[in-house]
Formats: sequence, structure tokens, C-alpha cells
Amino acid sequence: MGIFTQLFGSQQRNGGAQAASAPEAAAHDVREAQVIVVGAGLAGLTAARRLTEAGVSVLVVEARERVGGRTYTRPASDGTLLDLGGQWIGPTQQRMLALAEELGAATFKTYDTGNNVQYSGGQRQTYSGPIPTTDPLASADVIEAMLSLNMMAREVPLEAPWQAASAAEWDAQTVETWLQANVASEGARNLLELGVQAVFSAEPHDLSLLHFLFYVHSAGGLMDLLGVTAGAQERRFHQGAQYVSLKLAERLGARVLLNTPVHTIAQDDSSVRVIADTLEVRAERVIVAIPPTLAGRLRYRPALPGYRDQYTQRIPMGTVIKVQCLYPTPFWRAAGLTGQASSDSGAVRITFDNTPERGAPGVLLGFIEGDDGRAWGRRSQEERRAAVLECLVRYFGAEAGEPLDYVEQSWAEEEYSRGCYAGYMPPGVWTAYGEAVRAPIGRIHWAGTETATIWNGYMEGAVQSGERAAAEVGLALGIAVDPRNETQ
Amino acid sequence: MGIFTQLFGSQQRNGGAQAASAPEAAAHDVREAQVIVVGAGLAGLTAARRLTEAGVSVLVVEARERVGGRTYTRPASDGTLLDLGGQWIGPTQQRMLALAEELGAATFKTYDTGNNVQYSGGQRQTYSGPIPTTDPLASADVIEAMLSLNMMAREVPLEAPWQAASAAEWDAQTVETWLQANVASEGARNLLELGVQAVFSAEPHDLSLLHFLFYVHSAGGLMDLLGVTAGAQERRFHQGAQYVSLKLAERLGARVLLNTPVHTIAQDDSSVRVIADTLEVRAERVIVAIPPTLAGRLRYRPALPGYRDQYTQRIPMGTVIKVQCLYPTPFWRAAGLTGQASSDSGAVRITFDNTPERGAPGVLLGFIEGDDGRAWGRRSQEERRAAVLECLVRYFGAEAGEPLDYVEQSWAEEEYSRGCYAGYMPPGVWTAYGEAVRAPIGRIHWAGTETATIWNGYMEGAVQSGERAAAEVGLALGIAVDPRNETQ
Repeated sequence: MGIFTQLFGSQQRNGGAQAASAPEAAAHDVREAQVIVVGAGLAGLTAARRLTEAGVSVLVVEARERVGGRTYTRPASDGTLLDLGGQWIGPTQQRMLALAEELGAATFKTYDTGNNVQYSGGQRQTYSGPIPTTDPLASADVIEAMLSLNMMAREVPLEAPWQAASAAEWDAQTVETWLQANVASEGARNLLELGVQAVFSAEPHDLSLLHFLFYVHSAGGLMDLLGVTAGAQERRFHQGAQYVSLKLAERLGARVLLNTPVHTIAQDDSSVRVIADTLEVRAERVIVAIPPTLAGRLRYRPALPGYRDQYTQRIPMGTVIKVQCLYPTPFWRAAGLTGQASSDSGAVRITFDNTPERGAPGVLLGFIEGDDGRAWGRRSQEERRAAVLECLVRYFGAEAGEPLDYVEQSWAEEEYSRGCYAGYMPPGVWTAYGEAVRAPIGRIHWAGTETATIWNGYMEGAVQSGERAAAEVGLALGIAVDPRNETQ
Repeated sequence: MGIFTQLFGSQQRNGGAQAASAPEAAAHDVREAQVIVVGAGLAGLTAARRLTEAGVSVLVVEARERVGGRTYTRPASDGTLLDLGGQWIGPTQQRMLALAEELGAATFKTYDTGNNVQYSGGQRQTYSGPIPTTDPLASADVIEAMLSLNMMAREVPLEAPWQAASAAEWDAQTVETWLQANVASEGARNLLELGVQAVFSAEPHDLSLLHFLFYVHSAGGLMDLLGVTAGAQERRFHQGAQYVSLKLAERLGARVLLNTPVHTIAQDDSSVRVIADTLEVRAERVIVAIPPTLAGRLRYRPALPGYRDQYTQRIPMGTVIKVQCLYPTPFWRAAGLTGQASSDSGAVRITFDNTPERGAPGVLLGFIEGDDGRAWGRRSQEERRAAVLECLVRYFGAEAGEPLDYVEQSWAEEEYSRGCYAGYMPPGVWTAYGEAVRAPIGRIHWAGTETATIWNGYMEGAVQSGERAAAEVGLALGIAVDPRNETQ
């Protein structure tokens, strides 16, 4: 049960609690390894694991007091395990599915029985199936737009989106511009906007159309991204999604060093040094497995080329506050509802049933995303709680207004994530900086879901990126690294 | 002549030369002041100067071994002073004009006599006046678009661009989208694109239309930005633009600490601590006067609110390589040319006559901007030099191909600027994060040209921001700070 101590043993949160004077510390512990991995999220742990399996000596340095990065599982006041970060896996996420099986991380299907709620123009209606049908004209427009976008997405090369025939045109505009020009009904545009917010935790006007299309292609298609059954929200982990990282870290054992925020990476002809407040590690290669915007904050010696640095200035993190309300039972199920709602207004515009498989307590999950996340992130928790409950009552009735527990996680506040679900590209970035995404700089290699070519932004992408970076480093070291040697 | 020793005494450049192990240094020098200023560019030096004049004790900590930030004056091989960064001042830049007069920084008019060169579709033509007239239809379209954009710009409130009546619409699209929808002829779009590149060192598809309009309004109008005579390029400094910062620093004397890169800012109820590798300064307030994207890279204790942090993820620096070629004489003048060229192709698409007032050596100045800057920044200096000379020969004849000296400065490579001319906003940022631009966080205040409401992105904006931040801090300390007590 060591991993549960690691998970729940400390109430200490990273960030503010850390001593500001740490860089003053005089005595550095100096250690050596063949490869250092910065960041113990799924990408970093996967890279470390593959290299270790190939016989390479590895150290993983992690800023937080925990592993798992953007997956984070905590107990509610009644002990119910809640995923405060990434939580779902679905079909075609082969690496995560295999990893879950290998590590004994049992999954179950997201509750998806009954009708969904649509709240629009102040009216509440219910519908069945994945796309709201309460306004048939809007539904038809939505489906037509989705077909077009799926077709366009397939033309974006996953390894090099900037080589799409229409890359210049698609990267010169926002998704909002495309929606305005190509989707006739406002109702349809509202639904598509909600879909964009749900997938990117950003607004259609924040995103390059080319980035949107790349992301869609990397997942397979829009329904793969948006769907519950047969989509990215299909299954959940009994023990929470962080369990996968905890098990990987358990295997790596003392190779994982927590509470070790790195501030400098220095390389020369013979080695690379990774310097944290109280520790210095020397190695042949380093894999930086943190979001690009955070990688850009480290100090590099020699300084990174301008092209790489400017890329990290241009891939901001999405904005999401994940809220969960606990009730004695999932009362909406008795009313024939899935617990899924979509809305054109309110702090929470998307909800899901996040009840444990055993059926109690009832858990409603809501997301405050994009501009809503930015605005509500500046209010007090009391104000947010009231706004969230107001939404849930609208969607599911008065019973939703009196939860046993209210749990929220605002990812922009997390010093070592600074947003979720992922970094996204505004217009102009893929075409001008795309080649910087994975290109190593000397002894420095890059991992993290933002570098993935499949399921970019998802746990699956993180794992793919870790395997790719491990193989890259293996090649540099002249050591064969099998990217899938235990799982396939 | 102390300032010239400071300016030219050392060939050492910041960045790679600095010891990577500095954070390990054990012994911290601890100093105290009422206010600390981070960054000795024009904004920081102005703030320090105003506070010092009001009797406040100030320390300025600067990462580089020089002051001046994005102004940087160096001698060419023959001793001619070249501005490698910001260099021009023009009408309505009241603070800079007053500062120049006060400090004895003499100016002279940019050479603007004769015809300009336009290179378009492989053809070279000449024209007179500020707007190319070789294609009358395109010229008419350009003028019509500029009038529209100027009118729209005036509707953007400078203190709060997100409150413009059309803010949501304008911030949802790129400038490129607007050009495509509103400018009929391709020739006109090309010219306007060149104007955007020249002003922002970014592409029309990189920029939010709202940001573009704010920026235009903050300067007065498009001709204020683009013009030579009667515009932002009207006058130059005999001793280079950095001279202004050098003189300000000279007055501040020992209050300015060079070679002191800050890594941490920690505040509590009683004070703020600014921590560099070998120095810690304690104060009541700190003014952070560096570009927002670099401010976001520091470590803060407690960590900054997510809203502020995410803003710094969303304001990337422009991309420009400034190149200057020296010749025995300004030979183009004899041919009746101003030295100003605009082109629809090539590495250098904008040139100016940058000859000293005495008339020798002849200096041609070219800019490699936006996507060109990103692409050419990855090539070797030899390749760039060849591409630059090829352009100059096209515009000014064979004589341009054999310069006495070739000098270039790529601002994206500068570790403590990471781009020029300024940070810009992609779509969605002003409307979602605008309130973060100047809002203090506890004891931390923000300066720098990106926080200015007039001449944002220019030296004038830097000075305005320094005066505003000084007044803000004065108010917090209960000390009257006269923002203009010597100059007006």
C-alpha cells in the first residue's frame, strides 16, 4: 500500500509551501545517471521505464511532492476517490489500454444510460444520443460541419501539420472565423463552440484552425474526441487515473526524486547537468517531459536557440476548473438521465456522471472551461460553488443544490502545470514553429503530450511521447530501446 | 567618458558566457532598499529615476552586463555607432523627446529625400511619398483600408481595449482574416502585410485584430506608425538610442547592479525579497520591468495567481533580425533614392538609410521580420548575409553587394529579450486577460512597454510605463512621485 501513502499521506501542496530561499542552499548533492528525465508525469515515467528496461541508468526529477502531472487522484471527505485531473480512456488509446492492463489498473464504463440534458436559451430539454437534437436545424448544421471538419482534419499530416496543402490558409485563421463563415445557424455554432471548449478548455477564437484540425486528426475524428461510449470519455479507472503513474513510479523506485524543482539545464560536449535547488545530476542525455510553456521557463546553458525559445512563448495552456459534487445517490439516474448536460450559459456548461462503479455516492462532474474558467478562477470558492450549484439545479433539479461535498481543482493555479488539459497553438504557430516541437537541442530531448502525434493532449499522447523520446535517446546512446516490449 | 567604457569596454556578451553553476553560490550579499526595480531598460530606469527623485531608496537589478534592454548601440569595425535595437523617435513621443533634450541626447532627421524603391512581382520601380503608387488600384485599396482601420482603432479604449463595443468580434479574428475579407486587391493586401510586419515583426495571421487596433490607436494612427517624416521613424540619436539609458543609469550610479539575473521574487505581509544568483535584495515594493513573457519565467513565492500566469503564456515576442551594411558613401542618394525600399519577397523586405548625419559611411538598414525572421534565424550568418545582399542589390544596384562591414542582431537569440520589438497578443487574449496587464500582485508592480497605453511597444511606451509604475508605488508608499518633475 506504499503508493497510497505516497498519494494520500501528505496534505502538503506544492507551490506556496516551498521555501523561497531554496536556491541559496549551499550543499548540492551531486549524482550521476546515463539519462535524466525532468517531470514524473505519464510521459516522463514512460520514458524512464523504457530506458530502465533497456538497461540504461535513469533518474527522474519531479518538482511536485507527487507523480502523475495532470492526473491527480484524491479522496473526498467520505473517502471516495476523485480524479481532479485527466480521468478517461477510450477506444484506440492502445498504449494506455495496454498499460492499464499490465499494471492492473481496472477500468469501468462511464455511466451513459438514459437521456442527456440540453439547456439552451433558458430552456431545459432532454435528448438521447451524442448530439443534441432539440433543434433539428442546428443538429443538421452541426453534423454537416463535423463531417467537413473531419474531412479537413484527415488532410493534416500528423508528423508535420505545416505540410498540409491548406496549412497556410488554415493556420491564418481562428476556429471561430471558420465557424462564422461556414456554419449558418447560431444554435449550431453554439453547440460546436461547446465542443471546442470541452476538448481544448479554450475558446474557438483562441485556436488556430490548423491546430484544431491536427488535434482532431491525432484522435481519429471529432466523435472520438467528443463521445462517451465509443469515444474518449468511455472508461474510467477504479483507483483513479493517477494510479497508472503511481504504479510506474513504484517500479522505478528510488530512481524517482520528488520535491526537486529543476531550474537549470547546462550541456557541453561531454555531458549535461540538470540543476535543482539542492541537487545536481549529470548525465549523457536529458528528456524534458513537462509542458512546453514550463520548459521555456528553465534556464539553459548555453541559452536555447531563439527558434526553440520563441516556440515555447506560443503554446499556452488551456484553462479549466474541474468541479465535483457528491450526493447520497446518483438521483438523476432514477429520472432516466445520464448525468450529461450541455448548456449555452452558466459557469458549468458540460457535466458528466462521475459516480463510482458501485453506484454510491452519486457524483456529478462539471467543467468550467475557457473564458468561463478565466473569469471564475478570479472569484472566491464560495462564489464558484454557488454558481456551479445553480447550474446543476437547472440541469438536474433541486436535489443537485445540496451536495454532501464540493471538490474543485483549478489547473491554472497549479505552479507545475499552469493550465489544463494541454498547451494549444494560436494562429501562425504550427506553420512558423512546427519543426521546433520535437527537435532535440544537443543533449536535450522533449517529451510530453504536446509533442505527440496521436491523441495529442491526452494520456495516450503522453505515453506515446515518452516512448518516442526514449527511443530517440536510445539511438543517441547506441542502445536498443523497445518502445513496447512489455505491452505488445 | 565613463558611459562609453560601460558601453564599449567589454566584448563579453550575456548568455552563454555566464556560469551555469551560479545558483550554487553559497554566500548571498543581502541588501535593502524601499523599492527594487527588475530590469534596466528604459521602463525600469525611468521608474527608478522618478522614485529616486522623490527621495525613495531604489536598487535596479539587471541581468545583462549592460543597461538599455531592447536599445543597444555598438560600434561597427570602423567605429561608426550602430543601433542594433530600437533607434527612432518621432512626433507625439513627448516623454522621449523631453528626455532626449534633458539628457543632451541630440537627434537628427532620418534621411528621407528622393524616391523610394518598390520591388514587387520581380519588378523594381520607384515612387515618391509614403505609400507605393506603382499600382494605383492597390494604392487606392491600401488607403481605403488604412482609413477604415484608423476609424476602428479610435473605438478601442486605450486603458481597456476589451471594452470596445466590437471587442469580442475583433479579438476573435486575426488581422489576416480581416484583410482577406475587406481588401479586394492582392497587391494592397501585400502592402498592408508588409506594414504589419514592419510594425509588429510578426505576421497578420499572428495578431488579434483587436490588438492591432489597440496598437494603432496607442500610437495615434497608422501613418504615425509607418511614416518616416512626421512618423515614428522621423529622427535618430547621434550617439545611438542606448545613450538615453546610459545617461539615466549614470545618474542612478551605484543603484544599478549589472550581471544580476533574478530568479525568484518572494513576498509576504511585511516585505518583498528579490533573489538573484549571488544577491538578495529586500524592499517594500518591486517593479518588474521586463517583457511579460520573461516575467512569467521567474519563480514567485507565493506562486502568482493563475490568471496572471496564464497572461504571460499568451504574449509572445515578435521576431526580427536587424541587419546593417556599411559602404564608403550612401551611393543611393546620388541616384535620387531615399534608401527606403519595400518588397514582396526576399529576406529583407524593408530598408532605410541609416547613415550618420555627417554623411559617411553610407549605411543601409534592413529588417528580416516575422516568418522571415523565424526561418532565417535558423540559418548560418553566411547564408543570411548572402540573402541580405541579394536583396540590397535588387533594390539599390550592384554597389550594394560589396559592403565594408555587415552587422546583424537577432533579437530572438538574446536571452534577456527573446524577441523584438515587443510582445503582441494573438486572438482572445485582450478580452480574456486584459485586466492582468497592469494589475499589481501584492507588492509586485509591472512596467515595460507592453503595459503602456500610448506608443505601446515603443521607447515612449516604456517611459510612460515606468512613470506610471513609479506613481503606483509612490501611492502605495504614501510618497508623492511627480511623473514629470524635470521634463515638464
